[in-house]
Amino acid sequence: MLGTMMDVPLLLSSILRHAEAYHGDGEVVSATVEGGLHRYTYAEMAQRSRKLANALARLGLKTGDRVGTLAWNGYRHLELYYGVSGSGFVCHTINPRLFREQIAYIIAHGGDSVLFFDLTFLPIVEELAEQLKGLKAVVAMTDEAHMPKSAALPGLLCYESLIAGEPDSFDWPSFDENTASGLCYTSGTTGDPKGVLYSNRSCVLHAMAIAMPDGLGLSANDAICPIVPMFHVNAWGLPFAAPMTGAKLVLPGAHLDGASLHALFEGEGVSITAGVPTVWLGLLDWMDTHAREFSILKRVVIGGSAVPPIMVSRFHSKGVEVRQAWGMTETSPVGLAAALKPKHQAFPAEQRLALECKQGRPLFGMEFRVAGAEGREMPHDGKSFGSMLVRGPWVAQAYFNTATSPAHEEHPGWFDTGDVVTMDAEGFIQIVDRTKDVVKSGGEWISSIDLENIAQAHPAIQEAAIVARPDTRWGERPVLVVVLKPGASFTRQDMRAHYEGKTSKWCVPDDVIVLDELPHTATGKLSKKTIREILQEQMAGRAPDPEIGS
Amino acid sequence: MLGTMMDVPLLLSSILRHAEAYHGDGEVVSATVEGGLHRYTYAEMAQRSRKLANALARLGLKTGDRVGTLAWNGYRHLELYYGVSGSGFVCHTINPRLFREQIAYIIAHGGDSVLFFDLTFLPIVEELAEQLKGLKAVVAMTDEAHMPKSAALPGLLCYESLIAGEPDSFDWPSFDENTASGLCYTSGTTGDPKGVLYSNRSCVLHAMAIAMPDGLGLSANDAICPIVPMFHVNAWGLPFAAPMTGAKLVLPGAHLDGASLHALFEGEGVSITAGVPTVWLGLLDWMDTHAREFSILKRVVIGGSAVPPIMVSRFHSKGVEVRQAWGMTETSPVGLAAALKPKHQAFPAEQRLALECKQGRPLFGMEFRVAGAEGREMPHDGKSFGSMLVRGPWVAQAYFNTATSPAHEEHPGWFDTGDVVTMDAEGFIQIVDRTKDVVKSGGEWISSIDLENIAQAHPAIQEAAIVARPDTRWGERPVLVVVLKPGASFTRQDMRAHYEGKTSKWCVPDDVIVLDELPHTATGKLSKKTIREILQEQMAGRAPDPEIGS
Repeated sequence: MLGTMMDVPLLLSSILRHAEAYHGDGEVVSATVEGGLHRYTYAEMAQRSRKLANALARLGLKTGDRVGTLAWNGYRHLELYYGVSGSGFVCHTINPRLFREQIAYIIAHGGDSVLFFDLTFLPIVEELAEQLKGLKAVVAMTDEAHMPKSAALPGLLCYESLIAGEPDSFDWPSFDENTASGLCYTSGTTGDPKGVLYSNRSCVLHAMAIAMPDGLGLSANDAICPIVPMFHVNAWGLPFAAPMTGAKLVLPGAHLDGASLHALFEGEGVSITAGVPTVWLGLLDWMDTHAREFSILKRVVIGGSAVPPIMVSRFHSKGVEVRQAWGMTETSPVGLAAALKPKHQAFPAEQRLALECKQGRPLFGMEFRVAGAEGREMPHDGKSFGSMLVRGPWVAQAYFNTATSPAHEEHPGWFDTGDVVTMDAEGFIQIVDRTKDVVKSGGEWISSIDLENIAQAHPAIQEAAIVARPDTRWGERPVLVVVLKPGASFTRQDMRAHYEGKTSKWCVPDDVIVLDELPHTATGKLSKKTIREILQEQMAGRAPDPEIGS
Repeated sequence: MLGTMMDVPLLLSSILRHAEAYHGDGEVVSATVEGGLHRYTYAEMAQRSRKLANALARLGLKTGDRVGTLAWNGYRHLELYYGVSGSGFVCHTINPRLFREQIAYIIAHGGDSVLFFDLTFLPIVEELAEQLKGLKAVVAMTDEAHMPKSAALPGLLCYESLIAGEPDSFDWPSFDENTASGLCYTSGTTGDPKGVLYSNRSCVLHAMAIAMPDGLGLSANDAICPIVPMFHVNAWGLPFAAPMTGAKLVLPGAHLDGASLHALFEGEGVSITAGVPTVWLGLLDWMDTHAREFSILKRVVIGGSAVPPIMVSRFHSKGVEVRQAWGMTETSPVGLAAALKPKHQAFPAEQRLALECKQGRPLFGMEFRVAGAEGREMPHDGKSFGSMLVRGPWVAQAYFNTATSPAHEEHPGWFDTGDVVTMDAEGFIQIVDRTKDVVKSGGEWISSIDLENIAQAHPAIQEAAIVARPDTRWGERPVLVVVLKPGASFTRQDMRAHYEGKTSKWCVPDDVIVLDELPHTATGKLSKKTIREILQEQMAGRAPDPEIGS
């Protein structure tokens, strides 16, 4: 028996309608590509989004058509978020930092009908001009005064001219809340980028969940500045959650250096911001150099990679709370947030800091499993570890136009995040390794990250990696691969002595291999895959290198 | 095109699973009917809910079957909320304060299969014994030691014995999130009570919305004490929102007097509470008499009827924030909450207080229309008024097993709340009258409440009511009906002089009628319907009463 409640779908257009009706004079401030700050209200934003929707309809787009964007965090990008998705089209945000080939692949695989771009990215678009010829339109997100002359893009349209003549009335259509609203590609270390096709439902639920006090905690009293780009998993959902709550939204544009961010935060009274550690390092360093403080900022949300404890302490010393959050493109993204509980207030500072540096505890709606060998659930003791599986209304169940996906298929009903984690009794999850990097020795798992951290502390070692070597008896055994500091030496005996007492005996690597350099991926991460290949070659063809300790 | 996100339904059982997995040692403290405080954790609550689910299955209940409850706010009632709804049955909370005939009607109309009741309500259940003979079970919510001997209820079961032998494992079924989860009857001033059949989806979304900072603002750092009864619109959703956020839940049982509440709040560290003005009046008066303060309480949510400004000030003086909220049984209930915006902080205290005394601004998800004559939307200027219509995922679209409902039919897609309201540019809504009491004069609406408030301020008047009198020229005209203070007199001239300058000329009542007493409904409200009938009799049959001024 069904309830007798109204069948009102969760649509992104309802966020826009809410903001316009009840927070009409709420501000949206954007640092523009053309220079200077642009400032308007949610009412004006809604009005221009409707003009855009009329323009898109005139271009002949049909429900489900993809509209690509190559753009910074700014008001026109925001209008695209709502104008495109509210119309029943798909806003396909493209990461301009990817390799050209990947961008070309993504536009083709996504099947974009129209492409909008910020002037910054004109060179990319010009390079792709040949590929874009079949599109209904390519639009520069600027006004006529700033329109570039581009021989490569003869039919290039101007955003302001495109919407200028359109009526500002538009009835946002109502449709199934599972209708696709956004598309974002994730580029792993291997294989082609894979697309996650968000729905109106998933985005609305995710925005509600992050707005909750123990999510990111967002209200009409906040001024929210997402530093995380709108081309990266919907800027963690903040462009949806801010108008949903009536918060002021501050969009930083292209300049994410410490000086620019500090000026923007202070000038616009930003109370909450969100981004990756690298950005905060730049900001904190700049502030220290220039002896600046925050006068309004109260909370910084950090995600994307693990937060160094020292960064948390540096923010604390400036009176700012750190809320670590964890997520992936496949999880919309936020699944965990490290909001402390009352009992933690009584903890010693060091223990509290350790908790704040964990990835966090589950938002309501997100269910996590720590799956050990054979998929059995591991104890939530903060020590036992296993693969982190997740399910929930804002988790992808498949990739866009991709037939198979091991991450979705291995554990039916769950998405395998590819991380190895522990969970404590309070639900706090900590990533200890990537699944593909963990060493599976005799049915037990050894965290490569733990062993690398120990190695890294040795004075002779400049860079260290732990990789698994096949072993007939144990299945796999850890091997340490290092680059030494100039003039240093490091033997197998040194290794054993160094690990002694720092980890269980059976976790100590079997061997150490010294290389001149370690291979890295395009994004600067260690490529363990390549290291394993190097190792395999060494094992297969050659006697132990004389440099390897004995 | 649909998104590729997981199809994970929003179920009440997922709240329970979330609380158990990530807030397992979160506390639930209940003041019991048997005496003393009962204390356990969400993990134990979840375990006992599963035992209950097994017991319900053993009783032979089928999906959609209704399980009645006559109970206070306590842990067994909480287990019923989850055990019943989580199983796909319907938790039918019955208001024990209604007339016996209404309770009998509600149990019959709801079609309850099982009835659970707190010992307090044994007399009601015994009186209804004949009617309950066909039920699968009648269960006293207590243990064997406290089981009553009841000749009228020979097969009476004991809650603790019912669940004692059951296994504590139970896989909560997954089903359509629109599946009915709860049933609550609203008793208007006229006609039979009408049932609202909530769904898992509506309850989960409502809980997420009230947890948001500008809803009621709930987090794991709170201890939440709903004074509003669990038999009244799910205690405003707090039994769902508290475990969803991991907050401690404090359930006050039967004793809602000032002394009991103050002791409970202080003893259990309650940070947020919620209830109707009457309860707070009792608490504040008791505290003043006994010179007590709050040491932890930070926010009180007030709803059910308009909050007197003096009550807000009294809470402020004790360091407690007042969050007025508006809702109805038909709206789950919360639709509005009066959370101020940043700009309001700069307002003079009096103006801020006036805002806090409005019913509030819409939660995200709830859409409001102020519909004037012919249903057209009125300006959001804080002055123009019209009927308050609402729609959203937690609004009823019909009543349970009721063929027609004018409130749902007059404006298709909307529910007519029966209130006449203004809305300002910030979305703050204020109730100015009930639709049926407003006087429609010459196409304009006159608020009966405004005119009554003016009359009430006259020293001769003890009680005042404004009712509409049919008028051939204007449609309707207001007439003042009063009870005078002993020995006082009040003529038509007095009336005109008194209203002069206090309202527009055309709003001044045409006439005043003095009665010995005014008729009231069973719940103590003025019965304007009866007053109108009295007026009609007077108009029809008799010459003007000599007491009526001339």
